[in-house]
Amino acid sequence: MSEGIGEVRRGDDIARLIVEAAARQSTPVIAGDLLVIGQKIVSKAEGRLVRLSDVEPSPIARAMAAGLAKDPQLVEVILRESRRVVRMDKGVLITETHHGWICANAGVDQSNVDADYVTLLPEDSDRSARGVRDRVRALTGADVFVIISDTFGRPWCEGLTNIAIGLAGFAPLLSYLGERDPAGRPLQATILALADELAGAAEPVMGKLDRIPAAIVRGLRLKPSEEGSKPLLRDPARDLFR
Amino acid sequence: MSEGIGEVRRGDDIARLIVEAAARQSTPVIAGDLLVIGQKIVSKAEGRLVRLSDVEPSPIARAMAAGLAKDPQLVEVILRESRRVVRMDKGVLITETHHGWICANAGVDQSNVDADYVTLLPEDSDRSARGVRDRVRALTGADVFVIISDTFGRPWCEGLTNIAIGLAGFAPLLSYLGERDPAGRPLQATILALADELAGAAEPVMGKLDRIPAAIVRGLRLKPSEEGSKPLLRDPARDLFR
Repeated sequence: MSEGIGEVRRGDDIARLIVEAAARQSTPVIAGDLLVIGQKIVSKAEGRLVRLSDVEPSPIARAMAAGLAKDPQLVEVILRESRRVVRMDKGVLITETHHGWICANAGVDQSNVDADYVTLLPEDSDRSARGVRDRVRALTGADVFVIISDTFGRPWCEGLTNIAIGLAGFAPLLSYLGERDPAGRPLQATILALADELAGAAEPVMGKLDRIPAAIVRGLRLKPSEEGSKPLLRDPARDLFR
Repeated sequence: MSEGIGEVRRGDDIARLIVEAAARQSTPVIAGDLLVIGQKIVSKAEGRLVRLSDVEPSPIARAMAAGLAKDPQLVEVILRESRRVVRMDKGVLITETHHGWICANAGVDQSNVDADYVTLLPEDSDRSARGVRDRVRALTGADVFVIISDTFGRPWCEGLTNIAIGLAGFAPLLSYLGERDPAGRPLQATILALADELAGAAEPVMGKLDRIPAAIVRGLRLKPSEEGSKPLLRDPARDLFR
């Protein structure tokens, strides 16, 4: 989707904005479309903004901020959004959010909002995604799939990739378990993170300046499911990198 | 690209197979196309196969194999392809390959090859990608971009994603450094792993059964570069997860 959604404010109807922008661009939303929506406009519409100058940093936030050369008020907000600090070094603060995502700054972001404000991740991105899906159905009659995406870094590799932090309507993992290769051997490496690959696929057309905050991916065959994004979070008991 | 490349053998001309399959499918390769090619057919064409029954496991491979409930010959091959063991637990062996990639089993794979054989990652996937690029130019006159891809797991999240382990013709990272958001703030999180997002985008049309071992992504504007995939590897000195 090219530009045309404009600045999003608290209470805005994201689904309507996307449906209308798509129609104006002669690509009306149709059944089976996947809408990939950047987290930022969802957070703005849901009022998930914090004014840093209103925040009173705790002593621990002040101490950590000094070590990281970060703003103490920003660190305070990050800690409030976190249930665990995963790594803290070289000016980088990586935490596990209350949702279970592990990312820099708990997803708290200073860009593309007014100075002195930061955005938080949606409180429940799956709920946000379901909301958009329901609203698009009400507006157009079309059943769509929805991903709420954000760009996260990865260990060992440079560069962020867009991933799915919330979704509605389809199964985020694609499993080949039980299938066999042409030689009859069970397939290894058999579960693909389809939702993350689709979020990543949309990123190159969305861009980081947030002037293109949503993209439509068309022509996919996705497996209907209401399980949301939770299957993408690895069970800590099975995680070698806790 | 739908099916039609067939079983690849040592010495096969991958570029020709892809160009011919695309032409048969009425989507001839044109200038500016991105070819995303699964590692498996590249490894097969380059003869990067090992027969497990020919492998004599070292004592350390035997000991590790017992702890992991894996085949000692397979573990021996994995260790030969590695420069460091990153994690070893719960039946999973994650190493850093001689190239610098961190992944399960050093990329050694038993699926989609004859029983008793495994494939290794290409010796130099950037060289493989450049080879395909040069050969496509020779065959068709078209300048294309090339990614050699493999599916890797990630810490903390379930599911594999397709990533770029080699590439030719474009810059794998897309940097917004120095750009500002509409409020004039410098953008955070400003370097995107474009090559990995594009490899991921191709995966849903490629599938794991290797019957569709390559995909064409068309209509991209990529920044020409000969730097290959190395910029995707994080400098260990800057990595919080070594």
